[in-house]
Amino acid sequence: MPYELYYWDSIQGRGEFVRLALEEADADYVDVCRGPSSKGQGIPAMIAIMGSRSDADIPFAPPFLKDGERIIPHVANILMYLGPKLRLAPQNEGERHVLNGLQLTITDFVAEVHDTHHPIATSKYYEDQKEEAKSRSAEFIQNRIPKYLGYFERVLQQNPEGPAHIFGGGLTYVDLSLFQVFEGLRYAFPRATAHLSDRYPHLSALRAAVMKRPNIARYLQSDRRIPFNENGIFRHYPELDRDMA
Amino acid sequence: MPYELYYWDSIQGRGEFVRLALEEADADYVDVCRGPSSKGQGIPAMIAIMGSRSDADIPFAPPFLKDGERIIPHVANILMYLGPKLRLAPQNEGERHVLNGLQLTITDFVAEVHDTHHPIATSKYYEDQKEEAKSRSAEFIQNRIPKYLGYFERVLQQNPEGPAHIFGGGLTYVDLSLFQVFEGLRYAFPRATAHLSDRYPHLSALRAAVMKRPNIARYLQSDRRIPFNENGIFRHYPELDRDMA
Repeated sequence: MPYELYYWDSIQGRGEFVRLALEEADADYVDVCRGPSSKGQGIPAMIAIMGSRSDADIPFAPPFLKDGERIIPHVANILMYLGPKLRLAPQNEGERHVLNGLQLTITDFVAEVHDTHHPIATSKYYEDQKEEAKSRSAEFIQNRIPKYLGYFERVLQQNPEGPAHIFGGGLTYVDLSLFQVFEGLRYAFPRATAHLSDRYPHLSALRAAVMKRPNIARYLQSDRRIPFNENGIFRHYPELDRDMA
Repeated sequence: MPYELYYWDSIQGRGEFVRLALEEADADYVDVCRGPSSKGQGIPAMIAIMGSRSDADIPFAPPFLKDGERIIPHVANILMYLGPKLRLAPQNEGERHVLNGLQLTITDFVAEVHDTHHPIATSKYYEDQKEEAKSRSAEFIQNRIPKYLGYFERVLQQNPEGPAHIFGGGLTYVDLSLFQVFEGLRYAFPRATAHLSDRYPHLSALRAAVMKRPNIARYLQSDRRIPFNENGIFRHYPELDRDMA
């Protein structure tokens, strides 16, 4: 039975971190919201699960993964669940928690990316909080990008098995997520990220290596890879971008 | 060997979710930053781990747990790791991921609580972003508290084993975290939360039940329970509080 991924059909958003892992592993999965209603797919299938007034443990928000009858919500949780099955994580439980810790730092970073364009209210349009978004983005560029990327660069640098991967000597789902973060930042903030490769050489090399993996390269060329756009997490609003000090 | 919890010594903050689980289980643990420097404890011990220029997988931020040589960062990750060991989570792996999904929704909620007083920049004082904090808090009270608490109330309501616990028929660490969220909201927003018990009866009953558990009651009376204050996550600034519509 294929995995069923539930996420919005027109954005990369948070679902993309899961899609990348499934694609790298060439896993059998259905991107449910992008499927036809004639097969019981599409967004209504997702809303029905979230809106259930009788089921146990309904998810708060997408993305969530359905594996048989089991529903697993939240990106880091889905990836931790899938990791060993897709051979994108160690089998050892302690090491899986270390990996999960790295992914949860990415979760926090992604939430901060979202808030660069929505610092006041998710329920309001960007245009209604543009001034606050400029302030928050300035802080994000000046302090938060360096703090997070500097951290991941250091973890790569200090990996006892070498800086090619964020954990151990082989590819994990966190490597794929770091690729996505790097791509997203470049899309949203081209000015701020102009010198990213110079400042974070190990991260930059990791990004290039992930892009060249055959399954990832094929995915990025396919129409399954939704282009970045201004409904997603990483949005390009030129007025929020600036050169990094 | 006792567990070592690393977190700031003068606030409940995110560390409190871990402290509550350790206290409920009567686990042998050291709250390292609150210990004496004569024993190699205190905040410098935490900074040394985070600042290491050679260790693998250094944590991005506190809290983190040290179990022997293993370092586990992030609240939800720590709780997922400790859960079965402290008998505050099922042993079944699939169910542990369901529980982790619930905890990660609390993580997101707590991040939003933080941003009510710091919507623009963590690096700046509250006073420097007070106007934006008022806007964000108004949105938080009007839309986000109802969305999150309504969700958890529904999960309690739809628990096949009854609404006394968020998952299954026994206490889990998520129950303890929901107690903490409830307490924190009441502290930070006494006006907005004045009618919380009427609106969320199952959550309210869960909070009362947790408070009465002997180990929790003893902990709350002890000096190990740091009072809420305006350096933590849940802060009481009267100008951010208002009646809920």
